[in-house]
Parts: sequence; C-alpha cells; structure tokens
Amino acid sequence: MLPTIVREADAVVMIDQRKLPGEEIYVRCTTAAEVARAIKTMVIRGAPAIGVAAAYGIALGMRVSKATGTQKFAAEFYKTCEMMAATRPTAVNLFWAIERMKRTFAAAAETGASVEQIQDRLDLEAQAIHDEDVASCRAMGAFGAAIVPDEARILTHCNAGALATAGYGTALGVIRGAVEAGKRVTVLADETRPFLQGARLTAWELVRDGIQTTVITDNMAGAIMRMGQIDLVVVGADRIAANGDTANKIGTYTVAVLAREHKIPFYVAAPLSTIDLGTPDGDHIPIEERNPREVTHLRGSRLTPVGALIRNPAFDVTPHHLISGIITERGIFRAPYVESLRRAFASPQPC
Amino acid sequence: MLPTIVREADAVVMIDQRKLPGEEIYVRCTTAAEVARAIKTMVIRGAPAIGVAAAYGIALGMRVSKATGTQKFAAEFYKTCEMMAATRPTAVNLFWAIERMKRTFAAAAETGASVEQIQDRLDLEAQAIHDEDVASCRAMGAFGAAIVPDEARILTHCNAGALATAGYGTALGVIRGAVEAGKRVTVLADETRPFLQGARLTAWELVRDGIQTTVITDNMAGAIMRMGQIDLVVVGADRIAANGDTANKIGTYTVAVLAREHKIPFYVAAPLSTIDLGTPDGDHIPIEERNPREVTHLRGSRLTPVGALIRNPAFDVTPHHLISGIITERGIFRAPYVESLRRAFASPQPC
Repeated sequence: MLPTIVREADAVVMIDQRKLPGEEIYVRCTTAAEVARAIKTMVIRGAPAIGVAAAYGIALGMRVSKATGTQKFAAEFYKTCEMMAATRPTAVNLFWAIERMKRTFAAAAETGASVEQIQDRLDLEAQAIHDEDVASCRAMGAFGAAIVPDEARILTHCNAGALATAGYGTALGVIRGAVEAGKRVTVLADETRPFLQGARLTAWELVRDGIQTTVITDNMAGAIMRMGQIDLVVVGADRIAANGDTANKIGTYTVAVLAREHKIPFYVAAPLSTIDLGTPDGDHIPIEERNPREVTHLRGSRLTPVGALIRNPAFDVTPHHLISGIITERGIFRAPYVESLRRAFASPQPC
Repeated sequence: MLPTIVREADAVVMIDQRKLPGEEIYVRCTTAAEVARAIKTMVIRGAPAIGVAAAYGIALGMRVSKATGTQKFAAEFYKTCEMMAATRPTAVNLFWAIERMKRTFAAAAETGASVEQIQDRLDLEAQAIHDEDVASCRAMGAFGAAIVPDEARILTHCNAGALATAGYGTALGVIRGAVEAGKRVTVLADETRPFLQGARLTAWELVRDGIQTTVITDNMAGAIMRMGQIDLVVVGADRIAANGDTANKIGTYTVAVLAREHKIPFYVAAPLSTIDLGTPDGDHIPIEERNPREVTHLRGSRLTPVGALIRNPAFDVTPHHLISGIITERGIFRAPYVESLRRAFASPQPC
C-alpha cells in the first residue's frame, strides 16, 4: 500500500487523491500554506487524514520558519494554526489536531524551550498523531471484525479507507479487520458523487487488497437492498456529536434511512478524535458547501446547462437513532450515545 | 421547444439526447434498423417517447420496404416488430405501441388492403400514437396541477419531460401544468447517474421554460428533505404493474423511501400506455441491466479502477404502498391501485 501522507525533512508529501485511480501522482508541499491548499482542494481528504496533514503542515511550517526570536515564532505559529483551521469546516479531526499542536507549543514555550526545541516537539507531536491514527484504525478493525458476519455483502459510502487516514482506514479498516479474521466478505462501493471517492478511491484501495468490490451509482443502493443483497453498512465520519448524530459525506443519511427501511445494520467507524463532545447534536455541526463546479463539471467537461442552479453540501447528518453502533479504537459504542460516548473519553479501557 | 421526434416522408428525426445540453444534434434515421439502434443506444429515451419512436420506426421501415407482394411484406413487418421489441425490455410503452401497429396491420390485411394501403394505415396509426401522447401529457398536466401547492419545491428524478415523450412531458407536464395554472414552483432535479438525464435533460428543458431549477447529485435528496426544503415529489414511469408497483429510472425507489420517511407526497405521472394490467406486480417487471461502461466511463474518461466490478440496473421498482397517487390522462388514481387502475381502463371518464 502506498502511504497516504509522508513527512520528509523539508516537505510533506501526499498522493494526489483527485487524480486517482488514473494517475498516481505525488504532491510535495514545502510550506504550511501549500499543505493548507492541499487540504482545501482535496489533494488529501478524509477526516483523520486531514488531521494528520494539518499537524504535519504546522510542524513543517514552523520547521522552515524564518522568524527570529520566540515571540515572532509564536505569532507565526498561531497564524499558521489559523490558516490551517480555515481550510475545511466540518471534519473535527482538523481542529482536534490543531488543538494538540497548540497544547504542545504552549507546554514547550512555558518551560522556556528554544525555537529549535519547540520545532522538535511539534515534529514529534505530529508524528505521534500520525502513529496513533494508524494504531486506532488497526484497533477499530479488530473490534469491528466482530460485527461482520461471514460472507457479508458490505455497503460503504465515500472513502473511509487508508487514503482517508494515515493508513488502514476506519470503515475499510473494519472490512480489512474482518478479512484478517478469516471472514469472506464482498464490498459494494457507492460511487459517491460529486467527487467520486467511492468509485475512484475505495474501489482502488480494495482491488489492490484483493477484496472483491463492486461499484454502484449512489442511486442503486436502495434497489440492491430491496433485492436482499446487502447485509451490512459501514461508513466513516467527519464529526460525531455528543448525542451520536454523525456528519459524514453527503449521501450517508440516505444510506442510513435505506438501511433502517430494510433492517440492515448501519455502523459508523471513527477514531475518538472524530467525536466532539463540545458539539451537542447534529444541528450544531457546520456543513461545508463546496464549489458548484464540482457538480456542473467532470474533468473539465460540462454536465449541466447554463442557467441551472446547483447545491453542493459536502456532508449530511445522520441522526443517532439510525446508527446501530459506533466502532472506535476503544470498542463499539451503542445507544444511548450521549452516555456511552461520554464514558468512552473517561475510560482508558474498551467498553 | 424543439420537438423530441419528427416524422418526415423518408425518415424519423430525433434530437440526440446523449449529446444534450452541450450540443443540439439531430439524428436522421432512414430505416427501421436505425430507429431500433437509436432506441437501444438512448439517442431517444423515456417510456412514451420510446413508444412513439418504435411506431414511427415500424411505419418508416414498411414505407421504404422493398418487399414484393403482401405475404413478403407481412413477413418483413413482423420481423421489424420483433427487432423493435428487442431494443429495451422495461418500458412497456414500447410493446404497447408495437401491439397497436400489429393490430392496425392485421385489420388492414384482413380487409385485403394493398401494400400501399397498409403503409398508409401504419403511418396514420404511428401519427395517432404521437398525437395521443401529446394530448395525454397535456391532460396529465391539467389533472396534476391540482396536487401541486403554490410555492411548491418539487423534486423530480431522471427526465420525464418533453424529451421523454412526444412533447410536454409526464412528471414535467405536471410541473408545466401547475405553472400554467398560475402556481409559483421551483424544481430540484436529481442529476440521475449514470446517464445524467436530470442534470442534462430535465435542467435543460426547465431552464428553457424559465422554471427555476436546481441540480443536485442523487445522494443529496435525503439531506435536503431532512432540511424541510422539498414539498412534493413527481416522477415518471417505465411500467406500472396492475397493483400499482412502478418501474422507473434507477434511484426512484430510494427517493420514494426518503419521501415516505419525511412525509412528503410522492406521485407518479404516466399515460395509461405505461400501465400494464398483464404484469401483476413489480416482481414481474423485467429490469434492464445496461453496459457497465455507462458507470465506469464518462465522456470517454475512466472513473473506476480496472478490476472493480460494476452493477448497472437501469430501473428499479417502487412498491405501490410508497405511491401517493398515479396521475394519468384520465385523472389521478389512488390506492388500492389494483381496483382503481382496472377501473381506469374500463371507464371512458376521468375517475
């Protein structure tokens, strides 16, 4: 598996997810601004991966900083954090990672660390965020495997795979965990318009892993459920509110309604860094509206007539009552989420 | 409005719906085989339009026939009907139109009509099918307008417009009827992957008519319903079974489930020629599976990785219990459909 994101001494390198699966091109960012732009333009996407990219971007930005003295260095640090926070509003992992970098900075500054020492600590923290994410996905895979029946036909939406994380994946981590546990599974991937993360990224990842994957257009899932050919749905998340309401790629809510209609279990897989106890419910999650051009054009070719209006919300909210369980690195949490999610943060042990 | 299909003395001319809205190109078919190919490759699509095209294609084929003598002429006629019937399996209007042409042929042959007289009768019958379809759409529009609230925000799926019929449209006929009745409406058009009939055709038609239209990807409808921004759903149909189960473009079933979840009325608009009392229920409607390339490629550009499997059912079935009413040229029919639809055919009056 090609890594989603790599830190080099003077750069953050990412595979360009806009070009997959046709081309495997790497984008080399040598400044924090370039990393921010890569997040905004979706060179890299997926909530956990955005968090890792932001942390690396901040660490890189401060490593190559020309600021003299800790005061100017601090000013540049907070400006860099602000720039990173302005890239995308919905995925909470972004703000969580920035918060961790800020805490690291503050702790180092408090002890009178030099600029160079602060740079080292920021690098270490970003690396830790990366490593923890991989470990979290592995743990989610191990916990999640338990809810996957043998010979399950699993539907997933968007890409919550290795490309959406530092590696292995959240929803696709659960699928990989099930395969590693010896279960035979097949996957149906919603193509996920407008950005086609399912058709392009999920299918690409899973085919490389030798897992049988069938791409369908988003509007086919209901009909295929009605035919009795889907046993389980697993998706990722961009932000989970304290009550379990979950923001994820646009279309997830529709899949959840369909799953309930057909009595199919619907699971969300996400690390604790995606759960935001500070957001009480889904109504408080900001939903990014992206450029209409993502809908009107595909690879430069115009699809819609001039004069038609466009909506392009990048995410929707699935209310907690449609979610069978939330698979995290600490175990699987069930309703009532307002209690189980609070316990997740309190307890060091799997629940 | 450009006509969807025109009969000329030695040709059937259609606007190429694969090229809209970017290019307005007309395809001129001079043989029945060319018309059959145009139906199969979706130069023309939409259940009522397919019926009209098949009738014109048969009439044209027999007009330019080189067969000598009524026996050879009859053999060629039935072969032409067979070829036309093999184009697409789901839209029942195709078989209904072919049946009408066969009855016309048989009636003429029975009276000892000459080849030339039979040719004339076939031309007249095809023209009648065309004219009746336009009149049916107008009637549907007038009946349907009654169920459209003022300031309604109407969702439609695929294209059930002038392009899907001989003119005016079924679902879009209802919208046009509401506008003509002085109602202010706005339309949300599902883009309708993989063929993008909503993004390309519905938006194009309605923008030309000056009706405010917003294109969304198929996976957005649920989220927008949840925001309370859709008041009514109206779609067309490819085949309605005796119990009201309705085959229509893939994704219609999902929209119907979502509408029910959000307590939004869900109407089907179709002429009686789309209702097939010989098909007892949705399980008996053959669903066409089209070429995977429609999903894997868009305008020659590959979207999915090599190795991924593809599903491409062109239609799905919405069970009758999700349908608020069926709008026809005879009025609006309600559950229990098994009774109301039977009455529709028995009665010459609106029900």
